[in-house]
This record gives sequence, structure tokens and C-alpha cells, in this order.
Amino acid sequence: MTKLGVGVLGVGRMGRRHAENLRSLVPEAKLVAVADVDLEAARRLADDLEIEHYYDGIQPLVERKDVHAVVIASPSKFHLTAVQVAAAAGKHIFCEKPLALTIDRVDAAIAAAARAKILLQVGFMRRYDPAYREAHKKIEAGEIGTPIIFRSIGRDREPPPLSFYQSGSGTLFLDSSIHEFDLARWLMRDEVAEVHAFGGTLACPELVQFGELDAGVVNLRFSRGAIGNVESFRQSRYGYDIYTEVVGSKATVRVGYLRQTALTVLGREGVGHDVVDHFLVRFADAYLNELRDFVQSVQRASPPRVTGEDARRALAVALAADRSCRHSRTVRVAEEIPTETMHSAS
Amino acid sequence: MTKLGVGVLGVGRMGRRHAENLRSLVPEAKLVAVADVDLEAARRLADDLEIEHYYDGIQPLVERKDVHAVVIASPSKFHLTAVQVAAAAGKHIFCEKPLALTIDRVDAAIAAAARAKILLQVGFMRRYDPAYREAHKKIEAGEIGTPIIFRSIGRDREPPPLSFYQSGSGTLFLDSSIHEFDLARWLMRDEVAEVHAFGGTLACPELVQFGELDAGVVNLRFSRGAIGNVESFRQSRYGYDIYTEVVGSKATVRVGYLRQTALTVLGREGVGHDVVDHFLVRFADAYLNELRDFVQSVQRASPPRVTGEDARRALAVALAADRSCRHSRTVRVAEEIPTETMHSAS
Amino acid sequence: MTKLGVGVLGVGRMGRRHAENLRSLVPEAKLVAVADVDLEAARRLADDLEIEHYYDGIQPLVERKDVHAVVIASPSKFHLTAVQVAAAAGKHIFCEKPLALTIDRVDAAIAAAARAKILLQVGFMRRYDPAYREAHKKIEAGEIGTPIIFRSIGRDREPPPLSFYQSGSGTLFLDSSIHEFDLARWLMRDEVAEVHAFGGTLACPELVQFGELDAGVVNLRFSRGAIGNVESFRQSRYGYDIYTEVVGSKATVRVGYLRQTALTVLGREGVGHDVVDHFLVRFADAYLNELRDFVQSVQRASPPRVTGEDARRALAVALAADRSCRHSRTVRVAEEIPTETMHSAS
Amino acid sequence: MTKLGVGVLGVGRMGRRHAENLRSLVPEAKLVAVADVDLEAARRLADDLEIEHYYDGIQPLVERKDVHAVVIASPSKFHLTAVQVAAAAGKHIFCEKPLALTIDRVDAAIAAAARAKILLQVGFMRRYDPAYREAHKKIEAGEIGTPIIFRSIGRDREPPPLSFYQSGSGTLFLDSSIHEFDLARWLMRDEVAEVHAFGGTLACPELVQFGELDAGVVNLRFSRGAIGNVESFRQSRYGYDIYTEVVGSKATVRVGYLRQTALTVLGREGVGHDVVDHFLVRFADAYLNELRDFVQSVQRASPPRVTGEDARRALAVALAADRSCRHSRTVRVAEEIPTETMHSAS
Repeated sequence: MTKLGVGVLGVGRMGRRHAENLRSLVPEAKLVAVADVDLEAARRLADDLEIEHYYDGIQPLVERKDVHAVVIASPSKFHLTAVQVAAAAGKHIFCEKPLALTIDRVDAAIAAAARAKILLQVGFMRRYDPAYREAHKKIEAGEIGTPIIFRSIGRDREPPPLSFYQSGSGTLFLDSSIHEFDLARWLMRDEVAEVHAFGGTLACPELVQFGELDAGVVNLRFSRGAIGNVESFRQSRYGYDIYTEVVGSKATVRVGYLRQTALTVLGREGVGHDVVDHFLVRFADAYLNELRDFVQSVQRASPPRVTGEDARRALAVALAADRSCRHSRTVRVAEEIPTETMHSAS
Repeated sequence: MTKLGVGVLGVGRMGRRHAENLRSLVPEAKLVAVADVDLEAARRLADDLEIEHYYDGIQPLVERKDVHAVVIASPSKFHLTAVQVAAAAGKHIFCEKPLALTIDRVDAAIAAAARAKILLQVGFMRRYDPAYREAHKKIEAGEIGTPIIFRSIGRDREPPPLSFYQSGSGTLFLDSSIHEFDLARWLMRDEVAEVHAFGGTLACPELVQFGELDAGVVNLRFSRGAIGNVESFRQSRYGYDIYTEVVGSKATVRVGYLRQTALTVLGREGVGHDVVDHFLVRFADAYLNELRDFVQSVQRASPPRVTGEDARRALAVALAADRSCRHSRTVRVAEEIPTETMHSAS
Repeated sequence: MTKLGVGVLGVGRMGRRHAENLRSLVPEAKLVAVADVDLEAARRLADDLEIEHYYDGIQPLVERKDVHAVVIASPSKFHLTAVQVAAAAGKHIFCEKPLALTIDRVDAAIAAAARAKILLQVGFMRRYDPAYREAHKKIEAGEIGTPIIFRSIGRDREPPPLSFYQSGSGTLFLDSSIHEFDLARWLMRDEVAEVHAFGGTLACPELVQFGELDAGVVNLRFSRGAIGNVESFRQSRYGYDIYTEVVGSKATVRVGYLRQTALTVLGREGVGHDVVDHFLVRFADAYLNELRDFVQSVQRASPPRVTGEDARRALAVALAADRSCRHSRTVRVAEEIPTETMHSAS
Repeated sequence: MTKLGVGVLGVGRMGRRHAENLRSLVPEAKLVAVADVDLEAARRLADDLEIEHYYDGIQPLVERKDVHAVVIASPSKFHLTAVQVAAAAGKHIFCEKPLALTIDRVDAAIAAAARAKILLQVGFMRRYDPAYREAHKKIEAGEIGTPIIFRSIGRDREPPPLSFYQSGSGTLFLDSSIHEFDLARWLMRDEVAEVHAFGGTLACPELVQFGELDAGVVNLRFSRGAIGNVESFRQSRYGYDIYTEVVGSKATVRVGYLRQTALTVLGREGVGHDVVDHFLVRFADAYLNELRDFVQSVQRASPPRVTGEDARRALAVALAADRSCRHSRTVRVAEEIPTETMHSAS
């Protein structure tokens, strides 16, 4: 089978990882070019990966005939334009989460993809983590009975750099909790109907200038009655801690793991071990798996596993959490997303 | 030092445990008598423990001169009367949680104790668990920095018997989550200012007839800005699972442990171990420690570690959670408890 | 049923624990008296436990009609005499391990008990630990298939006081590894046929004066072909660490647990928890269970679960390990124990 | 820097993994060709990895000017010839363990490499595992004090295919325990002076025809007095279980980890998780790290981290274990390796 030619837009932390994976670990793909408004950064990455082509924007990328798909890893607020350009050029699209920061813009992205009849996949990579995948499989197989309580925690060791906030890459709920909201829908096999959030800027005073939260808790009610809670925190200090539980009527599944290495030290002061420190470590397999799946879906002309609609619904939950937190009230997710366009959970 | 003569009122599961502990494991105390409206049950327990005296109510118990203190473990709705009778008789009181099911009645109990100048301790036993105690000590010592997020989960393996609901022993939030609310105040060293709760009868359809919930999640906001979440669930199936976390600005403490024995079985289907199945197992030490502390406080005439005020404030949070769940809105705890009577956290 | 009157000989660490258990936690027994060559120590313990009688030796203890059984917890080298005196007086005997330090003396103790037709139980308390008991049950039930490899580690946090060595209470293999050798026989359901040991005085130079080892590893070959290894170490520094594994043809069971409390601390330097520090903590239940079982066996006139023969065979393995270590050669256990007297494993 | 051209000899499980790593994950190297006596297998691997060249033996491989180094992953008994051919051609060599199955042949391999002045590295990959590396670093830094006890266990889930035994790839001690013996030397920073082994064919009756063991325990005495034990087992059923401990005078380090994913399932029957099933999973990073280090050592003309001498000394311990097991006696390692050639531990 011919390799799928792929270009990567955005060479920050995530764009670089995707480019590396495409270069070395996705045999079905060929990394053709990288692009970034910072042309020098694009050149450096091209050098490091020993590829020839680099550009200062998406336009020259999508003009290449040997580029069949683009991976969009630019700041969130630029996603829509990039999606529209790529779709107009007939390129398949893998776009980092969040697809956009408003429902309108998500809808525009979905519409552009639909018009161009190209495949649009969104980067909720946790669905590709072996542990989450196995949990999902067990739930689908009925092994835990009816899902009753959903619980998910996402804690970063250190907050993203201030430049991330300056780029407008989204609030705590839209940028970080959105992973938990996607898991909530996917693992509970239901839609979130109502939310309530408390939040604060409690650990990182430097975020106050951006009006950004560093900690939030979100109560969830699902449309079939189940309940749940999501916590996001930007600065745990001890490590990158991702923990999710689905309590069912028959059994419970739990995904969570703290260790980076298999080493334990036992001394007078107790027993200790290390902690995974970064999402690129914890989800290294997931990032690779999602790209391979994207490439294979394009090659087989099969629909993506994580769709624009998934992005839209997770965003609606995040927006509702945001509104709840600002107004200190329960918010129906339907307030964020026109009901006529809501479909049942897949 | 003379032994403290103690009588136990109520010989259900908790009353029996307290009586056993007093009989054998609290050398500073002497179990004098037990009482229960079910006289036959009282007689059986007296037989089992080889003590002479048993009664069908609190009155004959408090009439004994050799009874200096009573342990009240009758159904929650009878607590107030028992407290009043015992206080009027000048007996020191250890009362199971919740002290009462309304703020008015809690206030009446506190007032009765104050008038009689007797010591009144409430049974939030987790404060006496070695792990919680050590967590509290570390927080007090500043080892985790400023507490930022509180998280506590309480799951029973199976719900209490239906008779428990028939006795009106309180809702999910007043009977079960109240332990988490007490921990919230004690470990965060702050008061809960606002709550929001979702709940449901999701696992135990037989509770619908009582209008009782079996699952609830409660968002918390503390008066100094910290946030949190509490989950209570009546039927985990897999075991009795108590898990609490305080995330601080410097470090995090976590109390949680699942195993009953030290045995692990490794087979083709994976690695497995057992789970603690009951609170009398998980908190065996805590139940003993709280009674010993009560007895010693009486003997030393020092104030109790868990006061009527503690009971009142935890109840206010529970009532607010109840109201929030019914009305689906954020509820200020001050709505439940007259502000003029609120004091700062100790 | 009438309570069994019990006297305790030896009021050191173990004697005190047995006395406390008998006083409070074994309802079928009545602690009548304690005795020790150090009469003052016996008096103090009697005071602490609020019993009337204390003596300076075993003779007055066994002369009491209300003493039906004695618990022997004096130094190992005095066990035989105490057993002989108690047996001659017709008292049932619970004797701490090792029953004696030579096969001849063990045989004399067994013979004395047989002549007197009294019950003699030996203190291999691990057989009464819930985890070990459950492991044994699973092996008996065939859940792991044929046992293939036995592995057991016993590490103290700190060595016993020097007075212990001065009292001649036995070498590393006879005093400490003997627990592992008993487990080996009991869990593998086979006899140890051959051993090989290396040892050294590697951590505690103060033991050199007594010619005592502080570390040893012992290879085992069982009579039906299975193999194994035992490690004993006197000074782990980090805690009391007991770990046993039986690898079977179908599955493996593992008994081991390090934590003292359920507390975990997560900070920049990693994740840490505490460690059980002492055998009286780790095996608190086991020590209680074995005494209750002893008392009940006497009352039911049923044979003890841990017999003199068990003591004899474990000792033979320990002696073989000792000889192997001294001569640096493989030693057949039969060299230590006259073959004509060997029976098949029960 | 110019890429190092590498050829791989042997396209079995290990050869394939090395080739894959070189092809995609070692940017400093270029996989030029693969070779195997089974030419068709070599062709298939070349196809899979999209490289042009494949051969039926080492000769054409080393004749290529663009091949600067070879990775030898043929059956152990062919290692020496391959080393000699490659060395004669001036190619640097990475050779899988064991380098050879007799000391004479190891010496011949070392001599060939020395004469040709090429770099010879041996595949003790555990030294490149992040956890073992960190353990080693802590020991070097004195964090555990003096190493006192070494303990290491290696259990495969299922034995290698019978073809492995037919190829004469070595006994349990020479093929499997040799990893533990290398760790023993490396982590204890000392040489093994004496060993004693028991072994048996206890789980895999099909190995009896080859006279091969499936289970062994080996007592170790180090030259400076420390002691230890190694266990190897071919068929644990439950998973691939590698566990190593170094007990020191101040603290203890432990390397061991069972889980494959971060998923836990909690149900009525207890709590369970999966187990790593294969060494290519557990040591994926280690296999990659060792190859990168080899390539970089060649490029920097620095000596290899795992030398022919390391192979020789680990083999001597394995041969001593083999002899001990056959003759049931303590064996001095010096019996296997002429003392005049022994150097002190590095």
C-alpha cells in the first residue's frame, strides 16, 4: 500500500511529538513536511528528523501533492482556519484537542470537513491508551454491569508555560478537563446532561493576570441518571497523575498508575518510588496509537474513531462547566449546544 | 485511678462493638450494663460479655451510681432524648454520629450537655484511625503547604439492612457522607462554605420506597477558597473502600487501603488480592481509640476531641448537600446554620 | 463451658503479649498467674493486668489446681525443663518456638508430653496469620497445582537486644529461619530433604563476639523434588519484612505486606509510605489466633495444629542449615534426625 | 556525524527486535542489511523493514563497505564463529548473551576482538533498563551503604519453543540465570566467589529429553563476604516476572514491576490487574538503550559498557552453578575460570 504523505502544522511540544512518531513509528505514513509561523523552529525540526521540507504556514503545506493529510497542532484558536484551509485543499485532518473553543467554530470545522468529504479526527488520545481501551472493552462487554458513577482526575505536575496562556489556548475546563469529559461520554456510553463546577486560582498566582483557574471540580449528571465528578489541577508538584474510575452495578474499573520506573527504595524513612512526570511519558503509546489509527482509517476510508461530533459534545460540557463556575449554579449542557442538533450517544 | 463505669445504650452492630471494646480493651473503663428497647437482645449481649446488668431503656442505666458515662448507639432519631436523659443524670456522654438529624436538635443536645457540665463526645471515629491521624499531623506541621483540594470517597460493599432505613436513621448525606464532611473540616482546617450535590437511587431499587439515595457526589467550596469533592455510594460490591486525599501546595497526602490480608494470587488471568469488606474491620483500631480517648478525657476532665460543635457543623454541610440535591442548585452552608452562632474553625 | 485456667512462664516481650491476650482477648481462658525468675518483673505484669498471682518460677504455677495449662515463653534453652515440669504436673502446654535447640531435647519434650497425655502445641504463629492460612487453604484445594518453588524471606528491622544472644536463645537459623522452615513444610506439604546455606555477620559487628550470623540464605530441596530458598536477615533498617511465595504449576501465591498505615505521601521527591516495624504488629492477629486455638483444642480434647513433631522437623532443617553453613556443603536433613523416627508429612 | 552502517545476523525474535530498533529508533545508525541461514526469513524481515539487502550468512554482510558494525543474534553456539568473522573483517560487534557457552570460546571471542581492535559489546540489556540503571546509580552513590544481600528472580511465563533447546542455546543457568549473575556482579560491585545450586525439571516434562532444567535456585557468596540467591524458572504461567533486590547496610533497593497496563478491576471476587507477559515488553526500553549506547560508543571510540570480560565472568558463575547442581556441592567460581586471568571487579 502507498504510504500516506503527512504534513504537520505547529512544531511546539505536541507537533514535535506527532512529527517524530510519523517519521519513525508509523510505517504506513511518510512525514513530508512541517510548518510553523516560526520558520526557524520548523527548520530545526525538519533538520532533526532529516526531512527536506519546512514552511512558515499551512498554505504551502497543503499545496503539495504528496501531502495527503495534515496534523494540526497549532494553538487552539488557530485550529478552525487551519481545518478550513486543509479541508478546502482536500487533505484529511488530524486536529489536536480542543478542535475549537466555541460551538460555532466547532460546527464550522465539522461543516468544512463534511463539504470536502475528508476524514476529520480529533486528538482525544486517552481513548488509545491500552488501559483505557481495555476498560472500555470491559464496559462494552457488560463486565461491570450498568455504569453508575464516573470519576476522573487529571493533575499536571507543573502548569504549562505562561506563553500557553498568552496564546489563548483555553481555560482549565476547555483545555484540560475536556479530556475527562470525553472519557466521561466514551466510558459511560451516555451524554452529560448537567454540570456544576467550583474552581479557583489557588496554586499559581501568576495565572490571575489571565483570569485563569488552576483547580476545578465538576459534578456531572448523565442523561440516564448516572452521576460523576471530574477534577483538574495544574500543579500537583509530585507528578502527572491521571486517574479514572467507572463504578458499575456489578464491578468497578479503575485506570491509574503513578510509577515512572520499577525501582523502589526502602529506608529508615519509609518506602518510596518515583512518579510519572509528564503526559508525553504517560501517554507515549496513546499518541502513537492514535496517529497510526488515523493513518489507517484514511487508507481504509473508514470513519475516524474520534469525530468532530465527539469534540463538539466534550466542548459543550466544558463550556457548561465554565458557565457553572462563573455563575455558581447548575448548568444544563443543552444550554451550550442547540438541542435540535443533539444526537444520541453512539 | 478508679475505673470509669460505663453503660451502653443500643445493642445493634455499633453498640455491640463499643460494649466489646469497653469490656476487654479499655482498661481504664468498666462496662457496667447494657440497655436496649429489645430487652432480650440486651440480655444476650450481657451474657456474651459476662456482665450482670441489662435493661430495656436508658432510665435504669443512668440511675446506677456506678455508671459514670453512657455510650449512645441507638438509632439516630433517638439520640437527643438519650443525651438529655443522660445529661440530666450527670453522666458523661459518648454519642454515635450523627448526633441528631436537625440543627435544632443538635443545639438542644449541646445545650443539655453544657447545662449539666458533662463531657459530650461524638463518634467521628476516622479521626482516630492511625492513617488519618498521621495525615492530620503532617498537615498541621505544614508538610503539604496550603491545602488546595479535598477529595474523599466512602463506599460500602452492601447497603445497610432495610430496617436501618425504616428506623429513619438518615439519608445518604446525613448518615454516610457526614464522615467525609467531618474529615473535610478537620483535615482542611477550614469550614465548608458552599456545596453542590447530585444524587440518585441507581443501584438499590429497594430504596426508592424510602425516597433514599444510594449514590451522591458533592462539590465543596471552603471559606478560604479551597475546593473539593465527596462521593458516597452504598453498594460497591467489591468491598468497603474509603479513600481521602488532601492536595496541598507543596505535597499531597492520601489515605486509602483496600486489602484485607497480605495474600496475593498470581495466575493466568492476572494478579489479584482481596478487599476489606466492612467498616468494623477497616476501622477496628479507630473505634477502640476513640473510646479510650473518651474515657481518658473524662478521667482527666479535659475537653473531648470531637465536640457537639463538630457534629453541628458536619450536619450543616450534610443538610446543605441534601437541599442542593433536591433543588439542583448551589447551597451556602450558612443557609442551614444561623450565622450568628458560627465560630471560626478550631 | 468452664474457662481454662492458664499460667504464663516468662514475662519478656513474648510472655507479656501472651498474657495480655489471655487476659483480655481469649474469652475461653482465664489468666490465673504469671511467673518469671525475675519476680519483680512478674509482679509488674500481674499489676498491669490486674491479676493476683505471680511467682518466681514454674513450680508454684503448676501446683495451682486452677491452672490447667501453661504458656512457656522463657528463653529457649529452658524450654525443656519447663515442659517436663508442666507435663509431670498434668498441665497442657503451649511452648514458644523453638521447642528446644537439639533434637534430643525436642524428643525428650515430646516424650514427656506423651507420657503425661497432655496436649503440647508449639508457637509457629504464622500458621495462624489470616494471609498464610488463606494461602494454605488455596494450596490444599489444589488452586496452584503442584508446588514447585518455595521462597521465604524474614527480615527484622533491628536485631534482638544483646541479652537475647547472651541467653543462648539460638542462632539465626534456629531462632529466625525456623519460621520459614516450618512454613516450607506446611505450605509445600512435603519434607525438606537437603539444604545448603551461606551466612555471615555482615551488618552487626557486635554479634561477632557471640559467633552469631546476622544474614543467611538457605537453598532447599524437598523430598518430592521441589526446590526453594530461605533468607533471614537481622537488620533491614527499613522495617519488618516477611515475604513468602509458593510457585505452583498452575498459579502462585504470595504473602507479603509492608505498610503499617494506609497513609501515602506524594511530594517532589516521589511517593512514599511507612513500613511495619515489628513482628508483634505484623502478627498481632496470629499470636491471638494461636492462643485461642490452643485453648479450644484443650477444651475439645482435639490434637494441636502445630505439634512437637512439627517442631522437631523444623529444627532438623535449621540444624542442617547450620551445619551446611559451617562446612560449606550440601547437608541432608536426615543427618540431623534419625531416619527410623521420620514419618511422612501430614 | 555520519550514520553507522549496521548489519544484523540472525532474524529470530531478538534479531528482529534489534533490526527494528536500528531501522526506526536509533537515529545514529543505518540498518544496511540482515542475514540468516534461513534466507527466506531474512528476505521477509528486509521487506517488512523496507531495506534492500539480505543474505544467507555473515560473510556477504561483512564484505559490505557500508556495514561498519554487526549485531549478532544467531543461536549461542554460533556466536564465536560470527564474532571471529566479523572481527577479522574489522567490524564492530554487538553480540547477544551468552557470548559463548564455554570459557575457552569466550576467551577466543575476546582475543579476536582485541586483535582486530574492534569494539565488542555483549547484550546484558538489563543494565540499560531505567530502573536497574537508577538502582545502580544509587548504590554507586553510597545511598544504601554496603551491599549485604543480593536477590534476583527471573521467571518466564512460558518456556522458549523446543527448537530453542534443539539449537543447543544453553541450559537454564547459562541462558537465563546469566542475566541475574551479571546483575549480581554489577550491582554488588563485587565478584561471585562461590555458588551452590539446586535445580529440577519440575514444570515442563518435555524438557527431560534434552536433559534441561526448568527451575533452579543458586546461593551466592561474594568475594568480600556478601551473600545472595538467584532463582530462575521457565514457566510461571502468570507472567514475566523479574525482581531484584540489593539489601544494604543503610537502605535497600528493589526493582520489580508486574503490571502491563494501568487498569485495575474490582469485583466481588477481589481486586485484580494484568501482568507483563514477555521480556520484549518489560525490557523494550532496555533493548533500545543498549543498541543506542553501542552505536554511540563506536562513534565516540569509547569502550563498551558491557565487555567481553563481563560475559566471561557471568559465564563462569553460570558454569559453576551448573556444576554445583550436577554434583550437589558448593563450587568455587575460580574452578571455572583460571585464576591467573581473574581481575578485580571494575
